[in-house]
Amino acid sequence: MKPFIYADNAATTQLDTAVFESMVPWLTDEYGNASQQYAFARAPKKAIAEARSTIAACINALPEEIYFTSGGTESDNWAIKGSVFFDEERKEIITSRIEHHAILNACEAVKRLGYPVLYLEPDTEGVIHPETLRQIITNQTRLTSIMLANNEVGSIQPIMKLCVIAHEHGSLFHTDAVQVVGHMPIDVREVDVDLLSASAHKFNGPKGVGFLYIRKGTNIGAFNDGGAQENGLRAGTENVAGIVGMAKALKDNCEQIEKYQHKMIALEKIFIKTIKEAGLDFIRNGSDNHLPGSVNLSFRNSNGELLLHRLDLMGIAISTGSACDSVNTQVSHVIQAIKVPEEYARGTIRVSFGKYNSEEDAEAIGRALVKILK
Amino acid sequence: MKPFIYADNAATTQLDTAVFESMVPWLTDEYGNASQQYAFARAPKKAIAEARSTIAACINALPEEIYFTSGGTESDNWAIKGSVFFDEERKEIITSRIEHHAILNACEAVKRLGYPVLYLEPDTEGVIHPETLRQIITNQTRLTSIMLANNEVGSIQPIMKLCVIAHEHGSLFHTDAVQVVGHMPIDVREVDVDLLSASAHKFNGPKGVGFLYIRKGTNIGAFNDGGAQENGLRAGTENVAGIVGMAKALKDNCEQIEKYQHKMIALEKIFIKTIKEAGLDFIRNGSDNHLPGSVNLSFRNSNGELLLHRLDLMGIAISTGSACDSVNTQVSHVIQAIKVPEEYARGTIRVSFGKYNSEEDAEAIGRALVKILK
Repeated sequence: MKPFIYADNAATTQLDTAVFESMVPWLTDEYGNASQQYAFARAPKKAIAEARSTIAACINALPEEIYFTSGGTESDNWAIKGSVFFDEERKEIITSRIEHHAILNACEAVKRLGYPVLYLEPDTEGVIHPETLRQIITNQTRLTSIMLANNEVGSIQPIMKLCVIAHEHGSLFHTDAVQVVGHMPIDVREVDVDLLSASAHKFNGPKGVGFLYIRKGTNIGAFNDGGAQENGLRAGTENVAGIVGMAKALKDNCEQIEKYQHKMIALEKIFIKTIKEAGLDFIRNGSDNHLPGSVNLSFRNSNGELLLHRLDLMGIAISTGSACDSVNTQVSHVIQAIKVPEEYARGTIRVSFGKYNSEEDAEAIGRALVKILK
Repeated sequence: MKPFIYADNAATTQLDTAVFESMVPWLTDEYGNASQQYAFARAPKKAIAEARSTIAACINALPEEIYFTSGGTESDNWAIKGSVFFDEERKEIITSRIEHHAILNACEAVKRLGYPVLYLEPDTEGVIHPETLRQIITNQTRLTSIMLANNEVGSIQPIMKLCVIAHEHGSLFHTDAVQVVGHMPIDVREVDVDLLSASAHKFNGPKGVGFLYIRKGTNIGAFNDGGAQENGLRAGTENVAGIVGMAKALKDNCEQIEKYQHKMIALEKIFIKTIKEAGLDFIRNGSDNHLPGSVNLSFRNSNGELLLHRLDLMGIAISTGSACDSVNTQVSHVIQAIKVPEEYARGTIRVSFGKYNSEEDAEAIGRALVKILK
């Protein structure tokens, strides 16, 4: 069943038709293995090189700084494990309490192997303050990993300032930018990060493909060991169709990124206005400086899961907690960390708009919530 | 350029048209995230469950023993790293000199972290003898990893006997079956392995997806940590299209597997007959008990790379050494390990037939080689 209104774009997005079409040749006639030496391998090899350049240009990186992976989770795991496993001296990781589980659980995994992990607490708006990093970072810190925008509440982190502090102490800096790439302009030179994770299906590309930006000269080991693909750092026969689709999706989104951001802000406003005017008792979580289109709300004395299901019956797809937490009814780790008052916390939902949503969608979701809660 | 004759099916295979068609809905209308709770997530969730059952049935596993990955390299890395990182007591790995680089380099990576790795030598036919394992295995061995069939010379390994020895010593047994799944019948209960790697693009499925069979009750940790997907053992938003395509490809291939094997043997015979009758001086590498359709030849005083390029100019795509080695002109690690005489070793090529090859193809490749070498 296709929902009447899909507003869970932070979980995944619709593949653009043009992106699908760009993938088709690589799923049909052009099936050659890009790592081979014969003429039939030239077209996929060239397509991968072009995709790498396209993606690099979108974030102001060099093509050789883009490493294709199977998605955001792999990129995050690579950043964490590839950093600490390949440094004899520094073993410590600093991250935050509100990272995606791909980061939190990768950190727990290396912690079990003897690598210390320290956690920064956010403020009640879901922001990690640079001074909290300065207080605990030492010259034993191998990696600092703080997300660019939170996937649940959308708060944008002061990455540039955090990055400066990390570098002052000789720590690498990684940012999980899975929710941001293709939605807000990113310039890796400006923010000065060493590592940045992205996932294609979050920006209207295909599932099962992503990338890790690795700044030239960064000392990081492979995560998937094997063949010589990706400069020997990420082995495995290249997913040509996925890579080509990802590049096309990112380029298309980046070309429209300002228009998109304005649209998202407009949709948010309409949505919030609708529920505010009806007098619903809610808190909007996260900071004012947030991911456009991402709206996290906690309704007083309500239940997020119930709201999700009632909206679902009305043909509206939204999320409660984060995507990966949606099997649990408990309050998500992010909502806990930002200390949403208990009478609101259980009534938390995330509405995330995307480029295929209309103003009518935004109003309809608002009206549906009013209908359920009034 | 599409080659006139594609005979590098051990590197990758053509995606079946029916497989492509099975993937299309998941790349277009049905873009929902399978891990979400609303109605729109039901179709992808169901498709993944069905794919899991289909794949399990093809190798006589239980559905819950199939874990989707991004391909053979990830499956191999998971088997190696997921085994040793999660055992406090046993730290040692035994593998062979002729494994794929995904195994060899994953082993080197854990070796650098302090896990001992021991290597078994093959005989000159590329077979690992069970007694060589018995001589070195101890109760410190955490994992024994021996491939089911070699990707270069096609030799099939005595997995059942090796597995018995491993289990007698309390070691897990993993087999890299990337070249075999979808090409020969596999019954995981019969061979009794604990872990088995496969890759979709090797059996006419899509690139960028594979699976790891993990026998129920096997103590192995996650490799990609994060969300709750794949029973909490392999995080990341599911690549629905890839998973569906993989299942379709495997089912279709398995239904035709005997017919396919007979065809492969017929093609090999025609090919070998053509070059033998012309009096070319060559050795056929590997054992008689080999992967059907895989022909590895060493021509006396010749150069494999030169042969590859000359054949390429004639519209024939084949390989020299293994896929991942094809950027190097040096003799591959497998050809070295099986001690092919020096005057032959450099003239090694691999012709690997697939289901879309005809008897005419087999004869044409033979005649092309005769033309070049006579």
